[in-house]
Amino acid sequence: MSVARLTVVGLGLMGGSVAAAARRARARLAIRAVDADEPSLAAALDRGLVDEALSPDAAVAAGWFGPGARNDLVVLGTPVGATAGWLERLAAAGYDGIVTDLGSTKRLVIESAERAGGTFRFVGGHPMTGSERSGVGAASETLFDGVYYILTPTPATDMDAYRMVHAFVTSLGARVVSVDAAAHDDAVAIVSHVPHVTASALVELASSRAEEAGADLLRLAAGGFKDMTRIAAGSPDLWTGICLDNADALVAGLSGLEGVLAEFRERVAAGDAEGVRALLATAADARRALPAQWVPATTRLRELSVPVSDRPGVVGIVTTAASRAGCNIEDIEIDHQSEDSAVLRLVLTDEGSVEALLADLEARGFTPVLRPLEEEA
Amino acid sequence: MSVARLTVVGLGLMGGSVAAAARRARARLAIRAVDADEPSLAAALDRGLVDEALSPDAAVAAGWFGPGARNDLVVLGTPVGATAGWLERLAAAGYDGIVTDLGSTKRLVIESAERAGGTFRFVGGHPMTGSERSGVGAASETLFDGVYYILTPTPATDMDAYRMVHAFVTSLGARVVSVDAAAHDDAVAIVSHVPHVTASALVELASSRAEEAGADLLRLAAGGFKDMTRIAAGSPDLWTGICLDNADALVAGLSGLEGVLAEFRERVAAGDAEGVRALLATAADARRALPAQWVPATTRLRELSVPVSDRPGVVGIVTTAASRAGCNIEDIEIDHQSEDSAVLRLVLTDEGSVEALLADLEARGFTPVLRPLEEEA
Repeated sequence: MSVARLTVVGLGLMGGSVAAAARRARARLAIRAVDADEPSLAAALDRGLVDEALSPDAAVAAGWFGPGARNDLVVLGTPVGATAGWLERLAAAGYDGIVTDLGSTKRLVIESAERAGGTFRFVGGHPMTGSERSGVGAASETLFDGVYYILTPTPATDMDAYRMVHAFVTSLGARVVSVDAAAHDDAVAIVSHVPHVTASALVELASSRAEEAGADLLRLAAGGFKDMTRIAAGSPDLWTGICLDNADALVAGLSGLEGVLAEFRERVAAGDAEGVRALLATAADARRALPAQWVPATTRLRELSVPVSDRPGVVGIVTTAASRAGCNIEDIEIDHQSEDSAVLRLVLTDEGSVEALLADLEARGFTPVLRPLEEEA
Repeated sequence: MSVARLTVVGLGLMGGSVAAAARRARARLAIRAVDADEPSLAAALDRGLVDEALSPDAAVAAGWFGPGARNDLVVLGTPVGATAGWLERLAAAGYDGIVTDLGSTKRLVIESAERAGGTFRFVGGHPMTGSERSGVGAASETLFDGVYYILTPTPATDMDAYRMVHAFVTSLGARVVSVDAAAHDDAVAIVSHVPHVTASALVELASSRAEEAGADLLRLAAGGFKDMTRIAAGSPDLWTGICLDNADALVAGLSGLEGVLAEFRERVAAGDAEGVRALLATAADARRALPAQWVPATTRLRELSVPVSDRPGVVGIVTTAASRAGCNIEDIEIDHQSEDSAVLRLVLTDEGSVEALLADLEARGFTPVLRPLEEEA
């Protein structure tokens, strides 16, 4: 069972790219778009990214979010500040399909989804990609290829909704990593939000020094500076929302960075060559070890069957354990055996440590069974 | 009069690329290389980058740096720490040609050149380019194309030596910017050395947080983090030398960055949306205004003639004024009219403010004359 109809709310770079990549995966999927910006809707229709497009009020009035559409998927590509309002809107309209979002922080949006109530089933998502460009004009069907795409199931997450979002995201070309929302927010503060603020700070420093010196200092900026600060050209409105949404983790991360910089500065001031070299060498090793883009594995698939009771959070526990072990879930199937028991079948690629995953699941009281999966003739 | 023979000392990425780009510009230029690393020499000979290659001791013994070679150019591509020793060596050997270097800081190397004495004529240089790769294997004839290349004339700089280095650097595909050594060192601290240390600090922070969390945090790093930290993979030895060579300016720059980050952090902690947005917006505007790569102008050349006495520093004063006015010197000619007077003829492209340049030179007691330059038929 796959997504019956896709509705993208918020047609920016990300929302537009979801439509484009979904279209590439399934040419005949029905795709609808909702945005307050008329030219964005027209551009998406023009490019054939979507079949229908309406303003928010018109879409609600047209019954796009009415009940009886269990296998619909709504993707909220709105800025983090507008997402809570949309969740309330969907609840009020009686929408009973699946909802996911594309926001850069996850704790607050999950709280919003729980607070909104309603009958829709929510799965938080965050594709780890982006661009300094913005708007639907920059949308690309390849934006998610080889990209890590985080899903953040909670104890309340519906198993079938998770499975469908997982399959949908995988069809976009991305690789799902399943993590806890709080761990996600802490991690992205370090690998995304602190770097963004730092890029802005570097530009700010260079601008103000250039002004003091009355010289065209920035003209001398070589490739390294340009690479490091490219993301600082991103939308200030969008990033203000992200920064404040993840304020606690960002503040802790910035403090940490200030500490590392102060340590560097003190070693340079002291002429401590060994100390400076040690910091640079540790960082160089870690940077070189950073994995290149993920390339899909095509051979040696394995199937892991996990009998589960329908106890809360089971899909989160199992998929998060798989991500922790470095295993990639290519596909999830669920055999509902009775009202409160099912078998979760995970198709795994040959990456990561399946032994660690088995041990982890056994320690949590599951009885997983592993078997190689033959390619069908 | 152009360079009669080129000797590159230190065959890394930069030195090797100088040889490659010089070869591209003048196929029959005699090019020699000196390096302690035998495989680097063999690789350069193999690729046809150089005609002859010797170890340092062998090159000195073979008389490569003997007197009587006024139009030779020695390019020191050695790490900053080794450059002073080479300047002493050249002085001791009686070398009377021209010397330039490729170092990232300029104050100390100019002091070293003055201290070494000798009969060679030194012009400090710094190409604003680089790569996270290193070694002669990564050398490329296109490395300098469209790149700003800084020369730092002093009052003691010989006019003809400057002219020849200017023409040589232009022939590599680069654009010369002439600035004072101290201004250079302060500027590169901000646009190059602080960003490098910051990239290392971001990787260090992410590594240590990942270790604390016991999670594979770096796996989630998207393109932005990778772009920002690419330069952190650079050689720790090379960068330790650069950091300590430019310690004062680097320490001041790092303090400045820590200050900007603390300001961001406080605004985020206070939930000050307007304050956060203001910092992000200023930086985004400045980053978007950053010039793209320079493309050579091909039309509307102008000639600026400046009668000068052979007073000390005249070439530095005139070329630095041109760079300050944003003017690009395509070519320099010098008509020596008597023992202590000459006419400096600068061929300028149509960039920058030639009016500002004329006013600046007149204020300094020169009597410049501007005329359009017709393309020769």
